[in-house]
Amino acid sequence: MNDLAIQRGYAVFDFFRTINGKFIFLNDHLDRFFYSAERMHLPISYTKQELKEVLSELAERNKLPDSGIRVTLTGGYSTDGYSLASPNLVITQKGLPISDKDTPVGIKLVSYGHQRQLPEVKTIDYLMAIWLKPYIIQHGADDILYHASGIITECPRSNIFMVTKDETIATPATNILKGVNRKQLLELAPKFYKVEERNISIEELPNAKEVFITSTTKQVLPVIEINGMKIANGLPGNITLSLKKELQKLVYS
Amino acid sequence: MNDLAIQRGYAVFDFFRTINGKFIFLNDHLDRFFYSAERMHLPISYTKQELKEVLSELAERNKLPDSGIRVTLTGGYSTDGYSLASPNLVITQKGLPISDKDTPVGIKLVSYGHQRQLPEVKTIDYLMAIWLKPYIIQHGADDILYHASGIITECPRSNIFMVTKDETIATPATNILKGVNRKQLLELAPKFYKVEERNISIEELPNAKEVFITSTTKQVLPVIEINGMKIANGLPGNITLSLKKELQKLVYS
Repeated sequence: MNDLAIQRGYAVFDFFRTINGKFIFLNDHLDRFFYSAERMHLPISYTKQELKEVLSELAERNKLPDSGIRVTLTGGYSTDGYSLASPNLVITQKGLPISDKDTPVGIKLVSYGHQRQLPEVKTIDYLMAIWLKPYIIQHGADDILYHASGIITECPRSNIFMVTKDETIATPATNILKGVNRKQLLELAPKFYKVEERNISIEELPNAKEVFITSTTKQVLPVIEINGMKIANGLPGNITLSLKKELQKLVYS
Repeated sequence: MNDLAIQRGYAVFDFFRTINGKFIFLNDHLDRFFYSAERMHLPISYTKQELKEVLSELAERNKLPDSGIRVTLTGGYSTDGYSLASPNLVITQKGLPISDKDTPVGIKLVSYGHQRQLPEVKTIDYLMAIWLKPYIIQHGADDILYHASGIITECPRSNIFMVTKDETIATPATNILKGVNRKQLLELAPKFYKVEERNISIEELPNAKEVFITSTTKQVLPVIEINGMKIANGLPGNITLSLKKELQKLVYS
């Protein structure tokens, strides 16, 4: 109760995934975790190499080949409930089956005007996301798409991509959390398509050929509806599915 | 670790104060706590009357006459780390001496452009406030004054008031957390001065006759400098001190 995470919502984390006992994009997650910690003035008592070894040991002991591992670094036990203290590092692991059965073929988004604070840092601040759950249900959607003054940014736990009519892949460039799967997709997509990181107006979306999101748990997931308007006739698009396949090749390689 | 407070920064709280074993403005704090909980979709398993009795019992058992009591209500233990669960209610009490010795005669503020999310709800979200501590030090200040597009709102843990040259008391009306001491001050001040709740541009502040902040721990505290510019020649103003005295009368009555 005295940790600044509970007192003041002050903590960062990252979410690692293992499949068949192997960490997926391990270095990307580590790099981002260390970046988040530094931006929030939170020293980590391990080097990246040491933390890697701790993670490996945990995974080996728990014997959970397909899992999610959450590494959380908090503001620490604060004597006055307001000043930064020595950070607490907590690592938890849970089984995370990789079955595609539960994954929907595509999801519906509803937009909401909100700019996350310190967006490029993976803090524990999901206040608006949780608060908006009734709003999502009320609009018959599956998730939120944030925009700031009409420029789309991201979903609460994933990045968004648009495929334009001329088959260019576009994704927001700023005021977002740069996801690991977003980074991987931006590296593989230029082999097949023109790719742009740029501002995307919410008004461009109804004209998109396809839309999809990326995240560690969802990898590539088609968006079939935004604000009640169907995207790609409400079906997963071919370019989306081809990129999904390419990303999966990387994951399992 | 599985509570949404740590997983997603999702919790509300209120901070009650006892002096000489008596709760100060108890009903105001209770009302706000229940309001915060309702706005965040968090049911409380007590009525106001029952929670009052729990608070009294805690204070009696702990025998800490001058204290701060924090009542926190979290999103609960979430199985998926994202969905609201049954809220956890935690009450902690700490000694809080009322000595004026440690209180500065006045404080220095530095402004920062930021609008708190869900400002009228007392959530645990103080991410920006803690993050900005190096910024405060760098500017030789004691605390932050938030503004949104040049309209001042509040400090991270207190409300702000301006005394204009014609001795009107003005304070921001919207996009703020409405403090209990702000409420009390707005009730007592009209007996002596003209009072306005309105938008205040940051550019009005250098022309203020006096500026002060209010909070549960600070009651009324003079502001003697903002962004390096002295207010009221860098000294506590007479109107501020008279209002401080009036509020203290209420606290000890």
